[in-house]
Amino acid sequence: MTQPSDKALVPFVSVDNMMRLIHHVGIDTVMKDLATYIEEDFKRWELFDKTPRVASHSDVGVIELMPTSDGEAYGFKYVNGHPKNTSEGLQTVTAFGLLADVYTGYPVLLTEMTILTALRTAATSAMVAKHLAPKGATTMAMIGNGAQSEFQSLAMQAICGLKSVRLYDVDPAATAKCAANLKTSGLDVVACKTPEEAIEGAQILTTCTADKQYATILTDNMVGSGVHINAIGGDCPGKTELAPGILSRSDVFVEFPPQTRIEGEIQQMPEDFEVTELWQVILGQKPGRRDDKQITLFDSVGFAIEDFSALRYIRDRIKDTDFFLELDMLADPDDPRDLFGMVQRAKG
Amino acid sequence: MTQPSDKALVPFVSVDNMMRLIHHVGIDTVMKDLATYIEEDFKRWELFDKTPRVASHSDVGVIELMPTSDGEAYGFKYVNGHPKNTSEGLQTVTAFGLLADVYTGYPVLLTEMTILTALRTAATSAMVAKHLAPKGATTMAMIGNGAQSEFQSLAMQAICGLKSVRLYDVDPAATAKCAANLKTSGLDVVACKTPEEAIEGAQILTTCTADKQYATILTDNMVGSGVHINAIGGDCPGKTELAPGILSRSDVFVEFPPQTRIEGEIQQMPEDFEVTELWQVILGQKPGRRDDKQITLFDSVGFAIEDFSALRYIRDRIKDTDFFLELDMLADPDDPRDLFGMVQRAKG
Repeated sequence: MTQPSDKALVPFVSVDNMMRLIHHVGIDTVMKDLATYIEEDFKRWELFDKTPRVASHSDVGVIELMPTSDGEAYGFKYVNGHPKNTSEGLQTVTAFGLLADVYTGYPVLLTEMTILTALRTAATSAMVAKHLAPKGATTMAMIGNGAQSEFQSLAMQAICGLKSVRLYDVDPAATAKCAANLKTSGLDVVACKTPEEAIEGAQILTTCTADKQYATILTDNMVGSGVHINAIGGDCPGKTELAPGILSRSDVFVEFPPQTRIEGEIQQMPEDFEVTELWQVILGQKPGRRDDKQITLFDSVGFAIEDFSALRYIRDRIKDTDFFLELDMLADPDDPRDLFGMVQRAKG
Repeated sequence: MTQPSDKALVPFVSVDNMMRLIHHVGIDTVMKDLATYIEEDFKRWELFDKTPRVASHSDVGVIELMPTSDGEAYGFKYVNGHPKNTSEGLQTVTAFGLLADVYTGYPVLLTEMTILTALRTAATSAMVAKHLAPKGATTMAMIGNGAQSEFQSLAMQAICGLKSVRLYDVDPAATAKCAANLKTSGLDVVACKTPEEAIEGAQILTTCTADKQYATILTDNMVGSGVHINAIGGDCPGKTELAPGILSRSDVFVEFPPQTRIEGEIQQMPEDFEVTELWQVILGQKPGRRDDKQITLFDSVGFAIEDFSALRYIRDRIKDTDFFLELDMLADPDDPRDLFGMVQRAKG
């Protein structure tokens, strides 16, 4: 059988290999490295091609392609969102991604991105908290103990020096699951019975719930001065977690305003509600936290550039490892004009 | 190691398996079947989501995502175009594609599409010629003997009963390559020294050259009455093959007018130049060929729906075969809220 040339082979990281890679590197190191890659790309924010995601909607869900490019590499993520899937034994969200070389147009990495998206979401939160949370923050309230909760806790531990996490979920089974998963993490884990109990003494408040409708996970009177709010769960039109009063009292930081105004917590606010773009804070062009009383709020929705950073990291990290397969995905005839001859010779 | 569930596995057709499949099925049958799938989708034209392709341009090339959906399946093709690649031993164009289930959002097929695109382009041309070429057409002039030329010839043979193909290329080596590749095809193959010689007695004129600039492969006085012109090579802005006079004398048929007016031969014509949409001809809503004197012209640029048809065909055709691998591409934790637990358990 015809052997493809090296150029025609695309490294593929399966779910299994992604998990092996995480354990080989160590999840704390993965979180730190991912945060570094993401921070680098926030610093280069202006040079990225910020194409809006391309969505295909149906009655039951959405399939999206999220492309971006820094001029050297091109990446996209395929991601679906089908809330009804869980009742049928399927995942609400699955994702995979591809990185290509802009100069040749050849793909250079295909990878699972369900796990990788969970990692990059948490690494982004922690990288942002490093810039915005009050100095010496060691306690986080983790409200919503679903699929993202352990990743958030471990990223904050690895990147911000978190010591203690206080868990709350409307479903105590979710809290029990999260607490069990974090047992060997080195974090002090406290399972709480109310959101009020969870936020006691916490300098960082992370909300990451699955409520579909406009919800109020944090009410205005629950949030004292000086905290950093890391709002993950308001991430699509019609889905928010915070009382508008909290937003009014906070300095709100966002990834990409045109997307956040549609998908984030600030969809509840007027169109001209003032926000600060994170890349400007990271570059020192705009202030982040100014004093101990200020409430900072990261209205996280997830942006294509964070996926791009994660794809870059995996491309670099798998070099000289066996955490990938090579897929014969690109036809590579010796003579580009003789594609048919290549097909014909394969018959032999 | 954790075993992924069936739902998390995505069938992948490599270049090697695509070639094995073609030889197993027979290229004539593949062409006929593909033409049937494409014709079916032209008949359902109106229900397709006709999202414009999403292009990322650089100084040296372009990377495009071409998505579409019929409401049941969702497909996209990744394709690059880098003319300078050939001078570096790489392909100008590489492609792969994905098909997903709209109801679940789960991918159901990943496949190479460099070969598959060559097949679908030829099958589309032949399906269109079946509707538009003069009755009893048995001879085709094939002008431009590059990568697409053999596929065009074999599709016309399988679908339209072509008996004879007359080859011409500015590079005699390309003609010799094409003639050699078609030696066992059953077609009467005539290598010609001029385009004028190639079109002698031909009822179908196919142009498929690689000229980058506005070129005139066919001049007005070369084209007599009653022929069908199958214009493949005018497929991007700035690239055309036919003298405008030919377009004025022809009835021009197109895939999707907004795209063809930018990329096709008709980019040379006024914005309101009259064209007929092929899907309406195939459904019998608009006339195709009306008489023996008429010149019909298919201004082919290639549309996402044809890739979608090709993806559907491969999905159906590989069932119960071994022409694919299963990729562990989608994370599938037993409990969707316990993605972290799945990762953690993989450590054992």
